Amino acid sequence: MAVYTDVSDEELRAFLAAYDLGDILAFKGIAEGVENSNFFLQTSRARFILTLYEKRVRSEDLPFFLGLMEHLAGRGLTCPVPVRARGGQALGELAGRPAVIVTFLEGLAVRRPAPAHCRAVGAALAQLHEAGSDFAMQRPNALSLPAWEPLLARAGNDADRVAPGLTERIRRELDHLQVAWPSRLPPGIVHADLFTDNVFFVGAELSGLIDFYFACTDAFAYDLAICLNAWCFEPDGSYNATKGAAMIGGYESVRRLGPDEVAALPTLARGSALRFLLTRLVDWLNVPPGALVRPKDPLEYDRKLAFHRRVESAREYGWRS
Amino acid sequence: MAVYTDVSDEELRAFLAAYDLGDILAFKGIAEGVENSNFFLQTSRARFILTLYEKRVRSEDLPFFLGLMEHLAGRGLTCPVPVRARGGQALGELAGRPAVIVTFLEGLAVRRPAPAHCRAVGAALAQLHEAGSDFAMQRPNALSLPAWEPLLARAGNDADRVAPGLTERIRRELDHLQVAWPSRLPPGIVHADLFTDNVFFVGAELSGLIDFYFACTDAFAYDLAICLNAWCFEPDGSYNATKGAAMIGGYESVRRLGPDEVAALPTLARGSALRFLLTRLVDWLNVPPGALVRPKDPLEYDRKLAFHRRVESAREYGWRS
Repeated sequence: MAVYTDVSDEELRAFLAAYDLGDILAFKGIAEGVENSNFFLQTSRARFILTLYEKRVRSEDLPFFLGLMEHLAGRGLTCPVPVRARGGQALGELAGRPAVIVTFLEGLAVRRPAPAHCRAVGAALAQLHEAGSDFAMQRPNALSLPAWEPLLARAGNDADRVAPGLTERIRRELDHLQVAWPSRLPPGIVHADLFTDNVFFVGAELSGLIDFYFACTDAFAYDLAICLNAWCFEPDGSYNATKGAAMIGGYESVRRLGPDEVAALPTLARGSALRFLLTRLVDWLNVPPGALVRPKDPLEYDRKLAFHRRVESAREYGWRS
Repeated sequence: MAVYTDVSDEELRAFLAAYDLGDILAFKGIAEGVENSNFFLQTSRARFILTLYEKRVRSEDLPFFLGLMEHLAGRGLTCPVPVRARGGQALGELAGRPAVIVTFLEGLAVRRPAPAHCRAVGAALAQLHEAGSDFAMQRPNALSLPAWEPLLARAGNDADRVAPGLTERIRRELDHLQVAWPSRLPPGIVHADLFTDNVFFVGAELSGLIDFYFACTDAFAYDLAICLNAWCFEPDGSYNATKGAAMIGGYESVRRLGPDEVAALPTLARGSALRFLLTRLVDWLNVPPGALVRPKDPLEYDRKLAFHRRVESAREYGWRS
């Protein structure tokens, strides 16, 4: 979490001249988001977040992300909404980077979610899936099955420096998933990164979802599997089936899972655990000198994967028919 | 600029339970301040900054800093005011660190100050000096003349790795200042670090001063010399006497400099340039692995020092009788 790019008051003033946002009252770089630089912006009109897209976000994807936030907000989901300049465009350029202003969402991320948080997140995830159903754009998931083999190749044999036998475990998992991966589950818009940092609560109420920069078109149930991984394990590595039941129950209170989705859940949980294991591993092995972000522990997902390998049915995640 | 310490929502809630600040609506780590971790806190009552003091601030100094901010605000200076918990105490503990909530100041730091900014800063500095005159506590300047010899010793011969001949230049400067340093100038509370990051403006109006964690008891004119160094040089290294005249004029519109202060200004400018050269040099040579802060360039102050060595009177800084 860092501010990668510095924005001077002069650059900011010049950028904001294209908008109708009133006077600038505060502007502070914030430690939010790993991929981009984010700033809190208070004007005499309202509060906003200004995002500069750093090189890990492909600029050709930005119309999809911005269009999606606008679409979802229009369907009643609480998420940041891109603010348009006087000329009508949401995407601008600041400090040499693509830049967007979005509305500010109140709320606080929870570190240790309770079952009630998991239920609320499950319901919000299903609302997102339904709200996205008539969104016109598509974006393939750049970090799904076809990406995992190249990620493993990038890690190379260095994976074993992180944990003995890790390369071999990933290799075997990948071989299994290449055979077992479900291909015909109901698809649509998924968030694909709904970790605890990306969900805000005011008191006990879910107040909004942020960070749509991994959103793409993929199986709905895969998104749920990502959330089970992100929300329902305890710090000691154990899976909390009460939280899992709350999350799946919250999800199904809005959108019922089909029998094919339920059956695929253990495989999807393995796949999503492998996806985060691989991307974290590559980040871990490639921390650039002077990095402002501490890489996340890949082995957290090695342990989660070990749990999922022993799961035989969705009931073990807390699903109830 | 970084957030060194992570604060979970649970730790925050537990900490805020001792205060009467309403519901938490937002909490974000901000890239402000080099020595401490700072967070933007929005509650249903107001906006605040929460500061965790990291190891470079000595906890025994905190009552001075907090008392000073409260005192100055009470005298009409716009600066952050420590917020007291229900029990009356301003200083608490959060995430294992001393922690304080202060009021939020609107405004934006300017990167390239115009003469009008310099004039406003000069006037605000003099207001600070006057407002501090009846503050009861004292704190010696831990980074004045007696500290420079040990700082040079810490840099050792590594200084020459930063620039050829730097050790010798600092040595000669220090020898000169140990003889020439004025000891009987009017003393009082000084900010001692009023760089552009620490002054906010809303539009053209100065809206407040922040970061009192170098404040101490020292010569008023030394504080002005620090500001001339920080505000009146151009990016190309040249001194802008128009800005200097504006700053000194702004200062004297509130508090006249005595003849002894005017006469000492070139020596004070050399001393303050040496102080920042030395502390930046030591930081530059001691960047810890995994540092979240990029050290500032010490040579900026080597070049400023070269300018000051050629100055013969305060008139060259823009002072007019």
